[in-house]
This record gives sequence, C-alpha cells and structure tokens, in this order.
Amino acid sequence: MPEHPQAVDCIIDARWVIPVDPAATVLDHHSVIVIRGCIADVLPTEQVRSRYQTKQHVALAGHALIPGLVNLHTHAAMTLMRGLADDRALMDWLNKHIWPVETRLVSHEFVYDGTLLACAEMLRGGVTCFNDMYFFPESAAQAALHAHMRAAIGMIVIEFPSPYATDTMDYLDKGIAMRDRLREEPLLSFCIAPHAPFTVSDAAFERVAVYAGELDVPVHIHLHETADEIRDSLATHKLRPIRRLQKLGLLGPGLIAVHAVHLDEDEIALLSEQGCHVAHCPSSNLKLASGIAPVAQLRRGGVNVGLGTDGAASNNRLDIFSEMRLAALLAKGAGGDPTVLPAHTVLEMATLNAARALGLEARIGSLTRGKCADMTAVNLAAPELSPCYDPLSHLVYAAGREHVSHVWVNGELLVRDGRLTQLDAQELATKASYWKEKIKSQGK
Amino acid sequence: MPEHPQAVDCIIDARWVIPVDPAATVLDHHSVIVIRGCIADVLPTEQVRSRYQTKQHVALAGHALIPGLVNLHTHAAMTLMRGLADDRALMDWLNKHIWPVETRLVSHEFVYDGTLLACAEMLRGGVTCFNDMYFFPESAAQAALHAHMRAAIGMIVIEFPSPYATDTMDYLDKGIAMRDRLREEPLLSFCIAPHAPFTVSDAAFERVAVYAGELDVPVHIHLHETADEIRDSLATHKLRPIRRLQKLGLLGPGLIAVHAVHLDEDEIALLSEQGCHVAHCPSSNLKLASGIAPVAQLRRGGVNVGLGTDGAASNNRLDIFSEMRLAALLAKGAGGDPTVLPAHTVLEMATLNAARALGLEARIGSLTRGKCADMTAVNLAAPELSPCYDPLSHLVYAAGREHVSHVWVNGELLVRDGRLTQLDAQELATKASYWKEKIKSQGK
Repeated sequence: MPEHPQAVDCIIDARWVIPVDPAATVLDHHSVIVIRGCIADVLPTEQVRSRYQTKQHVALAGHALIPGLVNLHTHAAMTLMRGLADDRALMDWLNKHIWPVETRLVSHEFVYDGTLLACAEMLRGGVTCFNDMYFFPESAAQAALHAHMRAAIGMIVIEFPSPYATDTMDYLDKGIAMRDRLREEPLLSFCIAPHAPFTVSDAAFERVAVYAGELDVPVHIHLHETADEIRDSLATHKLRPIRRLQKLGLLGPGLIAVHAVHLDEDEIALLSEQGCHVAHCPSSNLKLASGIAPVAQLRRGGVNVGLGTDGAASNNRLDIFSEMRLAALLAKGAGGDPTVLPAHTVLEMATLNAARALGLEARIGSLTRGKCADMTAVNLAAPELSPCYDPLSHLVYAAGREHVSHVWVNGELLVRDGRLTQLDAQELATKASYWKEKIKSQGK
Repeated sequence: MPEHPQAVDCIIDARWVIPVDPAATVLDHHSVIVIRGCIADVLPTEQVRSRYQTKQHVALAGHALIPGLVNLHTHAAMTLMRGLADDRALMDWLNKHIWPVETRLVSHEFVYDGTLLACAEMLRGGVTCFNDMYFFPESAAQAALHAHMRAAIGMIVIEFPSPYATDTMDYLDKGIAMRDRLREEPLLSFCIAPHAPFTVSDAAFERVAVYAGELDVPVHIHLHETADEIRDSLATHKLRPIRRLQKLGLLGPGLIAVHAVHLDEDEIALLSEQGCHVAHCPSSNLKLASGIAPVAQLRRGGVNVGLGTDGAASNNRLDIFSEMRLAALLAKGAGGDPTVLPAHTVLEMATLNAARALGLEARIGSLTRGKCADMTAVNLAAPELSPCYDPLSHLVYAAGREHVSHVWVNGELLVRDGRLTQLDAQELATKASYWKEKIKSQGK
C-alpha cells in the first residue's frame, strides 16, 4: 500500500458498482478510480481514502454505476423523422413518408443536426457509444465528436443513388475516404455498412467483403428482418439471405446481423459457427410488425447478441433501457419461459456483448481496470424504484433512462444530475423544430 | 358571451388538449376550465380571456393535456415486493417468494404503506385512478384517500385463509362492511374481486354474482391468464373458466376479465355478446410468460379493452405509459400488422375504456364538459421528444411517465412540475426500506 494516497483524476463512490464482467456481480459500496480517461481501479469505498485522492470526487449514495450502454444499431439522424408516420404498413411507411424525405432533404446539415439531437437523447439515457448506419456518415461522426461521444460510424453502401452518393463504388469510396480522414480519432471506430440483402448487389457485397478484410472492420447489415426479405431473396437469388452472404464470403466474426428475426435452426447454428453477432432491436421489430427474434435460441446456440434501438422513425426512442426491458419481457413471453434472459444477461447484452460485436471489448463494455471510463450512474432511490432488493433487477425491470444521473465517456463527465454538460438541449430542440417545418413543407 | 369574464377555480392553457372523446382529436392551443372539481369548458385559448378569469392560471406551452390515466388492474400494496424475485417460473415465484411474505407479513400497515407508495408512483406517472385487488382493502382505500387519488377498491374473495379473512364468507362480509363504511367517499368506487377461477369455488362465485347484482358493482377477476388455468379447469370442472363463469351467472357488462390471454374465437364472441370488459396487462403477461393476449381480435370482436399494470411484483412498474407503448407494439408484432392499435386507440384504452369498465365513464376518462377534472399534463418539449409531428404518437411511442409535469384529480393539483404536492416521496422511500428489511428477515 502506498504511504501517500495517489492523486487521480476522478473518484466515484457508488452504492453499487455493477461491472458486468464478472457476470451477475453486484459490488456493494464500491468506488471506481479514473486516471487519464481510463479505469485505474475498482475497490471498496472504505479503502479509497488511504490509497487515492482527487479534486473530483463524486458521491452517488443511492446509485448503481454500470458500464455505459452501447446502442448496437441505429440511424441516429432519423431523430428528425421521429413520429413522422406511425401505425403504417412497412412499404407505405417507406415509400410515402421516409424515402421521400430522405431523397429531397438529406444533407450534411440534416445528418449533423439529427445525429447531434440523437447524441443528446442517448447520452441523457446512459448510452455512451452507438453503431450508426446512415447517409453522410462523416457528418454523423462530426456530431458524435462534438458531443464527445463514442461512435462506430458506418461506411454505408446501397444500390440506390442518394444526395450522398451515386452508386455502390461511390458510396464505398466516400466511406473509405471518410475513415482515412478520421481514423486517428480515439472516440471513433468504423464499420462497413451494406444496407440490406435486398438493396445491395452480389458485386457490391464482394467488394464489401474485400474491403472489410483489408481494413479489418466489422460489417453492419440489416439481415433477415422480414419474411418478405427472405421470400424475395429466394425468388431472386435462390438462396435465403444468410446463405447468400455466406456464399459471398460475408459471414464471420466481423458480421453484425441486425434484426435476425426470421431464422431457422440451421441458420442459428451457422451464425454461431461463423462467430457472427446479432443486434436485437425488439421495439422496431414489433412496431414494424417484422416479428419476434429468437433471442433465447440464439443465445443457447452460442451467438453473441447485443441490443439496438434502430432509428427514431421506427421506435421512436433511442433508449436502451426500453430495449433492455422489452428484450427481457419479450423473450419470456414469446418463449413461454419466465427464466430466460434474466436481468444480468440483458445488461450484458446492452454493454459487453455489444462492445464485443463492434470489436471494442478490450476498450469498453465493462468496468474493468484498464478499460476506458465509459460509465453510467443510475439513481435507484426514487419512490418508483423503492424498495430495492436487487439493483440488477431494477436496472432492467423498473428503472428507465430518466433515472440516469451521470454519464462519462472516456472519463469525461457528459451528464451531471441528469443534465448535459456539453450540449444545449434547448438549442437542439429548436433545430429539430426547424427541420420539422422543412420536412412538413417539402418532404411529401 | 358574458359581459364580464366569469370567475372560475382554475384555467389550464395547453399547447395541445387531447380530450380522447371525440376519438383521435388533437386540439391546438386549447384551454380547460375547472369549476368545483369539474371540467366546465374546453375552448380555444384565445377565447379564454374574454370569458373566464381565475387566480389559478396554469400555462403549459409545450405540453399535451390528456385525461388522467386509469390503471384497470393492480395490486397496489405489492410495491413492497417490487423486484423481490424475478426471472422465475410462476409457481416457484408464488410458492417460494410471494405467498410466504403475504402469509406472514400482510397487515393493515403493510397494505396502507404499500398502497401509498403505489399512489405516489402512479400519480407521478399520470395515473389518476386505479382498480385494486388485495387483502385489507380498507387500508388500500385509506391510502388512496390520503393521496387524494381516485380508486376502485376490490372486495377480495379467495378460498384460502389469510391474515385478513378466514373463508369466502368472511372475505365477502368484510368487503361489504368496508364498502358500507366508505360508500359516500366521492373518490372511491368498488368492485367485488373474486381472485381467480382456480382460487374460488362455485358456491362462492354464486354468492359473488348475487352480491354484485344487489350492490350494482363490477366483478374484477383474473381470467384465462395461463394455459394451466384452463387445463386445470377442464380437469376439475369439465369447463373452460369462462364457460364456468357463464354457467354461474358471472358474465355480463359488470365483468372485468383481467389478462384474458388464452381465448378461442367463441370466447371472444361470448365476451362481446355479454358486454364484458378486458383489463390487458402486457408487461405482466410477458414477464410471467403467460402469453400474449389477442387484443386486436378482442377489439375487432367489439370487446371493451382497458390497460392495467398488475402488481409491482410482476411488472415491476406501475406505469401506464409503459403499458401503452407495449400494448401498441405487441399487438403489431404478434399479429404481423403494423396498423393495429394506433396511438389514439391505445390512449383511449388507457383512459375512457378503463373508465367504462369501472362503470365510471360518465365521470372520468375524457376531457368532457361536466366530467371530473382528472387530468394529466405531459411535457413534450424535451430533446428526446423532438421534433413533434403528432402529440398522440409521442404520448404512446416516445414519451414516458418522466414527462408528466402536472396531475389533477377532481380538480386538485397533486403533481406540479413533476413533484408530488401532497405526499412526501422521501418518507415513502424510507418506509419502503423498513418493509424491505422486514420482508428479507421474516418473509422467507
């Protein structure tokens, strides 16, 4: 033990520290020590005083401190279309409401403003990292950097022209150029993000496979979201989409399969064998009536499953607390077994599993010595959370994003007492209103 | 138009008033006028000044004003067992965790403290009325009155002895005596609450039917919650539970069937013909793996469906916003149709439909002239609710109970700027901790 307490950047004392790794562990009255943006120690609070000292001491007497939540699938800029069109059939929703807006209005400015609004929402809700897929990804990256938030930015590839790019080669070129410009940013990582099997050709997929290998980045794709997607693929390619991707060399530990609603047993085994990851988006799957993903079976089969919100046009919240609760409830109700997806497993899905899918498990996803200090504090002292027998249960079944009090990314405090420290919520809401008027007048 | 503006008790100006009746209506920049606890007028805000004046003027520039939410099924006192045991099979949960606590600890004090905590949670979440079923119902009633909240109190009937009563006649006698003492309370109404088909005998049901008719009160019962319940009924009574209740004279416009998860087409038709009501509790049905209620089919069949939270031991929130969102999403996802249960329908289920089930539709459930001023204001100006194309969509898909700013019951302001005006949240949390220690040390 040192004779003099070591000076550190920040000490956080929490009623409970829930590190996620080891699994299902709740540490009573523990503290986390932060030095240069990293977790330097996790120890009982009573031992802190003799070992460490700091000018930044945060005491969280009724709180659980958990790893920052990771949103494994979103289209952040689509916050600007939040609630634009609900309760509609998928193709009506896309053809008449979403795509017309995107065709006419999507721009650098749109994506920057929409993503910044998304960052504000996610940070206030305890999300410290998001995996994004959208047009103008460099603008999404700039917004994440402005928000001091961690993000995996998708180099989007889609067969259709857009205001952003003309064809798949143009999408790829622009994505790779963006990555080259931003690759030294410590808060950013990158995926190649081919949109979906029905919007990307074999030729483009082959290029995606080559680039993903060369750049050593994950591939982020919508996969087996709807029954129609599978039927159309069988008609066009004589293969179900997963088998087609296998043929094209896309399956592997770099693949993040978003939705994965419609899977047979062989496909679950295939995803497992290949080390693929699944981004489970229960709210979006229900709202668009895509179906219910077989999460319990995927986990039993050994597939790594994280959680995503999808975009705010089909959710309409970028709220991982909602997704945790819904994932836990839905797996029990749909499978007829109340013991599946217990609370600690769901929290793992929302943190460490998602980090693993992004290839970031060495840096984030658990409160482990040496990892980045991406952390979320949840105040469990409210009447609606009383009494508290088990903070892990409360995090999933009783608490909501409104109980998030503090959020750190890379050791920087971005939310304090529920308020954003870096972003101006009022200004973001005003910008959102500006876009709303533009969308209403020009988007249809 | 009067020459001098009329003096009234309260004027609330809202960005949007959503009266629920007429259906799917959003009134821009409207105001509600309250006189002696009742809604005296709903009119455009620009017309208010010339007609009314008041000392209590509440301006809600970014808010939706809606009818107070009605929780059509709960066991309020079970807040004290919130999160006591999750992720367990139903009979393990009941036998090893819930029933031992109830057998040893349930008392007047337990029910009063637990119900008061529930009232605090529900009021903060915009719920103004709840339909309760639990032991010591007079203590639940006293807690509701202390909270100035509206409640339908269940005269519980169950075959098993408890610290409250010895047999079904004792339960009925105590319930009726309670009702006789409290029947003049304007905030209270009453149901007879036979617990479930598998816990109440034919003889007791026959008495329930007689008393419900004589007292002209609804019958509040768990019904067709699980597949086991139906199988056991077939084995014991040679009838599915609904047919058994029909034989015993229980079906009719006074029946509130809670859960109604497992129904065949004939049973849906029967519930409709008989004018029965359903209390849909989607969170509880999923969490206990009971199944998914056929809500879209029930509504198509003409059955009136409201929403309930069930108790906090199986939810673990008394949060009608969560139930609205889940009901809307689940009906779409389970039925494969994204157009069913649109937002305005779900808000109707959470307000007017539940009021109708309780026989209170003449008094509450919509912002209609002459009804009681039970109202909830929801602040839609937060970044996570921006932009707002449609406040009805936001209430169901994007907002949560944390956005509730003001709540009135009978014209009395019980929540102001998110804070309880009548109850001490800290004191309630402390009481909850006291019970937690008692339950942990004695309940097992």
